[in-house]
Amino acid sequence: MTVSQAAASNPLSEILLVTLAQNTRNAARHLGTQPSEVKNQAIAAIANALEANAAEILAANAADCEAAQLAGIAPALYARLKLDEAKLKGAIAGVRDVGRLADPIGVIQIDRQLDEGLILKRITCPLGVLGVIFEARPDAVMQISSLAIKSGNGVILKGGKEAIRSCEALVKAIHQGLAQTEIDSSVVQLLTTREETLELLKLDQYVDLIIPRGSNSFVRFVQENTRIPVLGHAEGICHLYVDRTANIQKAIKITVDSKTQYPAACNTIETLLVHQAIASEFLLEAASALQSKNVELRGDERTREILNIAAATELDWVTEYSDLILAIKIVDSLEAAIEHINTYGSRHTDAIVTEDSTSAQTFLAQVDAAGVYHNCSTRFADGFRYGFGAEVGISTQKMPPRGPVGLEGLVTYKYQLVGNGHIAATYSGTNAKPFTHGDL
Amino acid sequence: MTVSQAAASNPLSEILLVTLAQNTRNAARHLGTQPSEVKNQAIAAIANALEANAAEILAANAADCEAAQLAGIAPALYARLKLDEAKLKGAIAGVRDVGRLADPIGVIQIDRQLDEGLILKRITCPLGVLGVIFEARPDAVMQISSLAIKSGNGVILKGGKEAIRSCEALVKAIHQGLAQTEIDSSVVQLLTTREETLELLKLDQYVDLIIPRGSNSFVRFVQENTRIPVLGHAEGICHLYVDRTANIQKAIKITVDSKTQYPAACNTIETLLVHQAIASEFLLEAASALQSKNVELRGDERTREILNIAAATELDWVTEYSDLILAIKIVDSLEAAIEHINTYGSRHTDAIVTEDSTSAQTFLAQVDAAGVYHNCSTRFADGFRYGFGAEVGISTQKMPPRGPVGLEGLVTYKYQLVGNGHIAATYSGTNAKPFTHGDL
Repeated sequence: MTVSQAAASNPLSEILLVTLAQNTRNAARHLGTQPSEVKNQAIAAIANALEANAAEILAANAADCEAAQLAGIAPALYARLKLDEAKLKGAIAGVRDVGRLADPIGVIQIDRQLDEGLILKRITCPLGVLGVIFEARPDAVMQISSLAIKSGNGVILKGGKEAIRSCEALVKAIHQGLAQTEIDSSVVQLLTTREETLELLKLDQYVDLIIPRGSNSFVRFVQENTRIPVLGHAEGICHLYVDRTANIQKAIKITVDSKTQYPAACNTIETLLVHQAIASEFLLEAASALQSKNVELRGDERTREILNIAAATELDWVTEYSDLILAIKIVDSLEAAIEHINTYGSRHTDAIVTEDSTSAQTFLAQVDAAGVYHNCSTRFADGFRYGFGAEVGISTQKMPPRGPVGLEGLVTYKYQLVGNGHIAATYSGTNAKPFTHGDL
Repeated sequence: MTVSQAAASNPLSEILLVTLAQNTRNAARHLGTQPSEVKNQAIAAIANALEANAAEILAANAADCEAAQLAGIAPALYARLKLDEAKLKGAIAGVRDVGRLADPIGVIQIDRQLDEGLILKRITCPLGVLGVIFEARPDAVMQISSLAIKSGNGVILKGGKEAIRSCEALVKAIHQGLAQTEIDSSVVQLLTTREETLELLKLDQYVDLIIPRGSNSFVRFVQENTRIPVLGHAEGICHLYVDRTANIQKAIKITVDSKTQYPAACNTIETLLVHQAIASEFLLEAASALQSKNVELRGDERTREILNIAAATELDWVTEYSDLILAIKIVDSLEAAIEHINTYGSRHTDAIVTEDSTSAQTFLAQVDAAGVYHNCSTRFADGFRYGFGAEVGISTQKMPPRGPVGLEGLVTYKYQLVGNGHIAATYSGTNAKPFTHGDL
């Protein structure tokens, strides 16, 4: 019986989980002070161990898939659960890619002389321990573990129950790999029960960041049930606004891409706003392009004077369809479009199509969202596409980190001040010595 | 009757406060897009209006002080409440200083070509609306209002009830000043009742950051009663560790400064850890220096074999005295000191005194705190001393912003992506075009 199995809802479970989290924290403290080479060797060892254990991992996944099919899993979930040889190979390549990313730890952000011999440095350091809760995607185990080690953090993983055999096989291989290195294998831990998830959310003494990956309702549940900071977003209600001076062909291309390139993604648009001056011309052509891609359209009253489609209600403006459905509204002005977005949007990503640079500037400045786009698809809102190398999540919170978050979201900093007997009294009172405050 | 007076605990109060917050948000949206000159003019206009209204402000403060004395206010609180001519002059000079700080808005943090004609910029922007709750320090009104305007944010202020007349006179002057400028005066709002504070904490739709300034218990109350992010810290349990190779004279100087330079400050030490090898020699001299400054000492068993002082209990290790009391513990090693700090500390600021650079490096790397210091006083943990120009608070949270927070804590960023009809489909699938990802 593993610690995590024993921790399931019994009087001992909380104590066991605390012990597990303490072990992870201690192991992470050691990891966090290791140089890049040691962390990269650990990541390479993990990749090698995953390769060596490929047959066992694929067999475990096959068993998960069979059980899931018997239980009547939805096709989309099944596709995420399924780990074939090609997908595993790709994921292991992804682990090696993380090894090649720049080390986010030890970066000197401030280097300043406060006075002679009194030097302040702000240096990036790991957060400590991450709690990552995901659904039926076993490949997340590999990606998250390698990102955690790269950033010097311990990680407590909790996968969906459908993926339990796969996750156990993957973490076994990761532990095997780490055993060949200087890194304590308890930096990566796996929980397997729902009860443990609830207890994990209470461990604000030991866990520094929770990253939930799953449905909107799941993320909201996590946000409402923990005092630990949460990286993630509950909703992605993105908008595309087609301005009066939009180039119609660009607007149609961007509309179709933003809605249909991957309808279930959070950066897909849910509402199309159209300036009244261009509405007839644009909407007739756009509707036919969207309908040829099987998009169901819903419109406000003025849209329905142009298109023969179902009515959109107030509810449509606040709904993330995650599906081939698009709500359309005609607005009288750029300002009305901005007002609609700032009222109903989820601060994720919103775009304008226009040939007028003043309108574009106004939109980019006044729309309150993590991503504000001009003449391009909302689907670019993604850590890989932004060039971050890896994405740990997308945040719609207003405080940084905001938007697609790369390794920097797993990092904090500390201030190191080094003196030679310097005391504050020297710089206080009537004969106070002034600080020099010179950046080095 | 002002809006804020009417909002006190009645069926309409919540609606009125929402209206007030919406007005602040709308005014802040306009402010947030203004160039530096306009914001600096507004700050200058505020300083002028405060000068022009000095007599009225001082009279209002005198009335507050008189009422507080009749109510038997504590001397320390009275000292904070009292606003004499010199203090007001200093505070107005502080407002003008904020005008001279670098503009934190519009800073380009990332400027990257994703592909030809597809340019990603990460640009700093205001948070939106700040909620600042402070106790009986009317000068906070001037400092916070100017920092909010500099960072393009609206601010809803709530001062302590003892300072109500002073705060009203100050905000009246600030509104008079803003009326001479392009900035809508509702960017700065004042609440006056405790009921409004509770309602303010619920306005997560309109308020982006809460900054509580007050006692530890008050900050903890705020943290536990809002879903809005909170900038602040509930506790400052700071440590000084005197290592076996410490220079005794440096150690004594730093100990006395760290404890006595301002005992009520959060960056004052509460616990002194001493390596056993140096304990006798250091402690005898240090105790006499501390006791001559009226510091009450409490020690663990081994300390009491050296010093004739009261016993320290487990409770002492977790207590922020905010007073002339110091707990002392003898440890066997650097590692034991680090373990004590990481167990009992509040992640604020901890220092080591040592002549051994390896010990210093280990301490700076392994102590988990916003500030880790070597051979200098913990009292340097302060935004002004760090050269940030102004301090909006000190955060002991692990996620950034951490430690003393300057204007950057009032700022977030957005990603602006500008293309020319670019769509994600071009970069997906079998014939995917690669991104160029070149920083500009």
